[in-house]
Amino acid sequence: MPVSVPSAAFEAFIRDVFAAAGMSADDAAAAAPSFVWASLRGVDSHGVSRVPRYVEMFASGVANPTPNITVNDSAPAVAVVDADFAPGPVALTRAVDIAVAKAATEGAAVVSVRNTVHTGAIGYYASLIAQRGLVGVGIAAGSPMMSYTGAVGASVATSPLAIAVPGTGAHAPVVLDMASSLIAMGKIAQYKRSGTPLPEGAATTADGTPTIDPEVAKVPTPLGGAKGSGLSLMFEMLTSVLVAAPILTPYHAGQKKHRQNATLIVLDPTVFGGAEEFAAGVDATVDTIHALPKAEGVERVLVPGERSAETAAARSASGIPVGDKLWTELTEVAGSFGIPLPTPS
Amino acid sequence: MPVSVPSAAFEAFIRDVFAAAGMSADDAAAAAPSFVWASLRGVDSHGVSRVPRYVEMFASGVANPTPNITVNDSAPAVAVVDADFAPGPVALTRAVDIAVAKAATEGAAVVSVRNTVHTGAIGYYASLIAQRGLVGVGIAAGSPMMSYTGAVGASVATSPLAIAVPGTGAHAPVVLDMASSLIAMGKIAQYKRSGTPLPEGAATTADGTPTIDPEVAKVPTPLGGAKGSGLSLMFEMLTSVLVAAPILTPYHAGQKKHRQNATLIVLDPTVFGGAEEFAAGVDATVDTIHALPKAEGVERVLVPGERSAETAAARSASGIPVGDKLWTELTEVAGSFGIPLPTPS
Repeated sequence: MPVSVPSAAFEAFIRDVFAAAGMSADDAAAAAPSFVWASLRGVDSHGVSRVPRYVEMFASGVANPTPNITVNDSAPAVAVVDADFAPGPVALTRAVDIAVAKAATEGAAVVSVRNTVHTGAIGYYASLIAQRGLVGVGIAAGSPMMSYTGAVGASVATSPLAIAVPGTGAHAPVVLDMASSLIAMGKIAQYKRSGTPLPEGAATTADGTPTIDPEVAKVPTPLGGAKGSGLSLMFEMLTSVLVAAPILTPYHAGQKKHRQNATLIVLDPTVFGGAEEFAAGVDATVDTIHALPKAEGVERVLVPGERSAETAAARSASGIPVGDKLWTELTEVAGSFGIPLPTPS
Repeated sequence: MPVSVPSAAFEAFIRDVFAAAGMSADDAAAAAPSFVWASLRGVDSHGVSRVPRYVEMFASGVANPTPNITVNDSAPAVAVVDADFAPGPVALTRAVDIAVAKAATEGAAVVSVRNTVHTGAIGYYASLIAQRGLVGVGIAAGSPMMSYTGAVGASVATSPLAIAVPGTGAHAPVVLDMASSLIAMGKIAQYKRSGTPLPEGAATTADGTPTIDPEVAKVPTPLGGAKGSGLSLMFEMLTSVLVAAPILTPYHAGQKKHRQNATLIVLDPTVFGGAEEFAAGVDATVDTIHALPKAEGVERVLVPGERSAETAAARSASGIPVGDKLWTELTEVAGSFGIPLPTPS
């Protein structure tokens, strides 16, 4: 029977689990909100469902609960963070702080994070930046899962891009958070569970045959063909190759280590056209989109992040829904550490 | 009868035309190569075909041949260039120089350019940056031409993104240069000329009805639906709104002024993982993509910019092909200024 868990109780539970798994209290507290943020917004693939995976990865030594995170403060507007295989949220929330501090004096900053085990929800970090009144851009790269135009099988990552901009607060935060694939890997699993055919052109079998059958679909297709696979390739260049931690080349040579890299870009609107002007302009642009003539059958024209913000508002009130399988996993995790499960709402 | 013109002769001709139209010799020399670059690479919509349009825009006062371009050097890693309605290539090549100089000391730099009449080929500026051993990213925004998910008609721009990275020189430059629409506006015109049906889902009529008939197709569709229209909207935020020169909001309120804005981002690989390591990593990644297992019927798996580089090599040898209509226009332009036409090859 599915349950719902209040977000604050879930955050406390995740903190306790991570601390019990060996993470410092500070790191556990830094990481926990990112999973709750994703679950609240309906991005369940990057939410609480990751917690049992991290417990496994700590146990197997893939993820490092006590990382020696190092920061190379290499230039006024640049830093490179080596995560030492920390969970992404630990290293990336630190990268957000560094990038925001640098942007305050330099006007813009770029911080790359190498060697996390998994980035987490890249939109979360862009949103943290926007919450401080700055423009946040994040990209990430990981192991090949998506096809590449002209090639067969899992060739490049479904590397995501997130862009968040601060408004005046009158509207929900504007956050674009998109994979370079037409549909996300997690969506294929959802179609499989519900027995619904996939959209035409969204996936292939392992040997490259296009399919709409979610049972045999293994490889998602890039967004817009060569554009999506090109984006993914360039994100590997701007994250992994940039910090001399390539993923694609070693992977295709047989070194299939579990790791990801990410790059954050922060811009301070103050030194472009003014912070107040920017926030007002963002809001006016949202109003403009909302007022566009609607297509037949469309109730509202939305901006990026708007639907997720509404899901978050609903889940903040009703709790985060947890399916049977995940609840069983969380029960086992709680039991193994002797931690009480969060009380469902 | 179509002719071919050697690229050097074309560049000299464009310089002469722009100088005759009132531009300074320096500005004319800065702008001319961008059009030749696009024509050489087969991006004819942003190439020499723009020259008669600029002559018209100078005559009508839409474009400014003697702009007072101002640079607000607002922060160590940021500058804002006001183009005063110069042709994009004049202001953006200047922005490239500023961004490259700032990145040399800051490690990264972001330069926005407001109020050009047309950006030109954004991939050209990214490529200029990569030619200097740096990572170049460029985005641009302009007037609405593309549909927005859920809305009817031309709602947002087909705003492009370009990313160029420097390799060792062993491969053609890796340059992603893509619109946020599924197919470019200029492609619809090509389908129209050849009488070929458009790809399914690539365009709508003015009233929002999907069509594959190039005769009635007026509005290109965003790449991947909400992702492409979201990208375009965020590019308006990161260019126009960022420098307090919004385009979408005034446009939809009836102020349909002809203008564009752009933002360039430069990263110096030296302060990330090392310049030599980066160039070698870019080349190795290209090799990895080339070696992917090929889909049936595919001869080669390509990286972004590779086909365009081959077109450029071919056209460098044979000349830039010019259709009858454009040749007639160029003949008129040459005649009106008393400038000799370039000699066809």
